[in-house]
Amino acid sequence: MSEMLSAWALTGMPEVRPGDDLTALIAEAVTRTAQPLRDGDILVVTSKIVSKAEGRVIAAADREDAITAETVRVVATRPRQDGGVTRIVQNRLGIVGAAAGVDASNTAEGTVLLLPLDPDASARRIAAGLRETTGAEVGVVISDTLGRPWRNGQTDVAIGAGGVHVFEDLLGRMDTTGRPLVVTQPCIADELAAAGDLVKGKVSGCPVAVVRGMGRFVGALDLPGAAAIIRAPEHDMFRLGADEAHREGYEAGFAAGRAAGEERH
Amino acid sequence: MSEMLSAWALTGMPEVRPGDDLTALIAEAVTRTAQPLRDGDILVVTSKIVSKAEGRVIAAADREDAITAETVRVVATRPRQDGGVTRIVQNRLGIVGAAAGVDASNTAEGTVLLLPLDPDASARRIAAGLRETTGAEVGVVISDTLGRPWRNGQTDVAIGAGGVHVFEDLLGRMDTTGRPLVVTQPCIADELAAAGDLVKGKVSGCPVAVVRGMGRFVGALDLPGAAAIIRAPEHDMFRLGADEAHREGYEAGFAAGRAAGEERH
Repeated sequence: MSEMLSAWALTGMPEVRPGDDLTALIAEAVTRTAQPLRDGDILVVTSKIVSKAEGRVIAAADREDAITAETVRVVATRPRQDGGVTRIVQNRLGIVGAAAGVDASNTAEGTVLLLPLDPDASARRIAAGLRETTGAEVGVVISDTLGRPWRNGQTDVAIGAGGVHVFEDLLGRMDTTGRPLVVTQPCIADELAAAGDLVKGKVSGCPVAVVRGMGRFVGALDLPGAAAIIRAPEHDMFRLGADEAHREGYEAGFAAGRAAGEERH
Repeated sequence: MSEMLSAWALTGMPEVRPGDDLTALIAEAVTRTAQPLRDGDILVVTSKIVSKAEGRVIAAADREDAITAETVRVVATRPRQDGGVTRIVQNRLGIVGAAAGVDASNTAEGTVLLLPLDPDASARRIAAGLRETTGAEVGVVISDTLGRPWRNGQTDVAIGAGGVHVFEDLLGRMDTTGRPLVVTQPCIADELAAAGDLVKGKVSGCPVAVVRGMGRFVGALDLPGAAAIIRAPEHDMFRLGADEAHREGYEAGFAAGRAAGEERH
C-alpha cells in the first residue's frame, strides 16, 4: 500500500466561548482520546470556533449591517425567495462568498458570527501552541463552508493555514521569479479542508478534524497562509456577476451611444 | 474516536489502453494488495483512465478543434502569455472549466484526451462491475481537476458518480442549537474527489484511490449522479465572464443610447 491518509473528528471538544484558549481546548481534547498528535498531523479547525474564541460574536439584529461592514466589494446580488437579497461579496480577507462569511448556524440564539480577524495568524498561533504543548510538528487549516459558481452545493475550503503548504507545487518547484513552474497547482489546503469536512460533518458537534499521513505538506510556521489562495480581482475573469457586469456595460454603452446619436444630427 | 476515514492510492494499476476493461483492471489491482474491498468503500477514479479505456483519444494537432467540438457555450476567454487563448467553457456534460476538459497531461506523445462520454454511466458501470466481482457494495466517483473563480490553484471534483450520494441531505436536519440547516448542502462527491487527490497526487502514476469509512454515503446504483451537481446557467450569477457580460451590455446599451440620441433631434 502507498501512503495512507486517515482522518477523524476530534471528540470531546467543549462549547467554545469568547476568550477561551482554543489551543488549550484542542490539546486537552486530544489527551482525552487514544490518539496523541504525531509529527505531520494536520488539524482542520472549523472557523466558527475560532471566531467564538476570538469573541467575533455580534447581535443577530445587526447581521445585515455586519455583512456591509465586512464587505470590501459587492460581486453579485440576487433577490431571494424569502424577500431578502443574497449578496456575494469580497470580504476584507479577500474571500469571495455569500454574506461575507457572517454565519448564523450553530451560534447562540440571537447572535451571529463574523469570520476571524486574521485566520492565517490564528492558524499559526494554534499550530505554534500545539507544537509547543504536544511536541508534535503539526499543521493547522482553518476551514469554512463556501458555495461556488457553476456547481450546486458547498464544500469546505481553507481560509487560514499555519505550518502547512497551501499548494503542492510550493514544495520547491518554483521558477526564478518565484512563480510555479507548472500550470497545475493543486490547492492542498482546500483539499485538506474538504477531507476534514467528511469526518466533521455539519451536525456532529465536532468542529476539529485530525488528518494524518499528509506530513509532506507540513512545514515551517512562516509558510504562506491561505491568503495566498485568494486571486486578485484584476486577474479574475469572474470578478463581477454577469448581471452586474452587463449593467455596467449597458450604462457605459448607452452614454457612448447617445453621444454618437446626437453627433449624427 | 468517531468514525474514521482512511484513503490510499491503489498501487499496481497498469497503463490503461483503449478497449481495456477498467473494472477488471481495478479488481485485479485490488486483489494484488493486502486490502480487499469492503462494503462502503468508495473508489475515486481519475477521469483520464476512464477516457483512455473508452478510447476518447485524439491527435494533439486536433486539440483546438476538439475543444470547440466539446463546447456548448463559451463562458469566458482570456489571451494567455504564450499567445494562445484560455477558454472557459461549458461542455456537453454541463461542466464549466478550462478547455472543455480536453487534457494533454499524462497522455501518450502527440495525443490528447476528451472527457468520458457519460461519466455517470461509466461510474455506475464500474461500481456495478466491482460489486459483482468483489461482492462488496462499493461506490465510484470519477474525478477531474478543475480551477475555480476567486481562488488560485485547482482541486479535484466529481464529474461522475455511481452508487454514491453526491450531496449530504441535510434537509430537515437541525444544527446543534436546534435550528434547521436548510441552506447547507455539502457536496460530498466533490469532497471525496478532493480527499482522493491527496493520496493519488498528480505524479504518482496511481489513478485510483480507495476511500474507506464513508459507507453512509454509499447507496443504490440508480442514485442521481454527478450531473446533479451542475447548476443550470439560468440559475448562475456567474454564467458569463465579467468582460463578456460587460461587452454584451455595452453593445445593447450603445444601440439603445444611439436610438435615444437620434430621437432627441
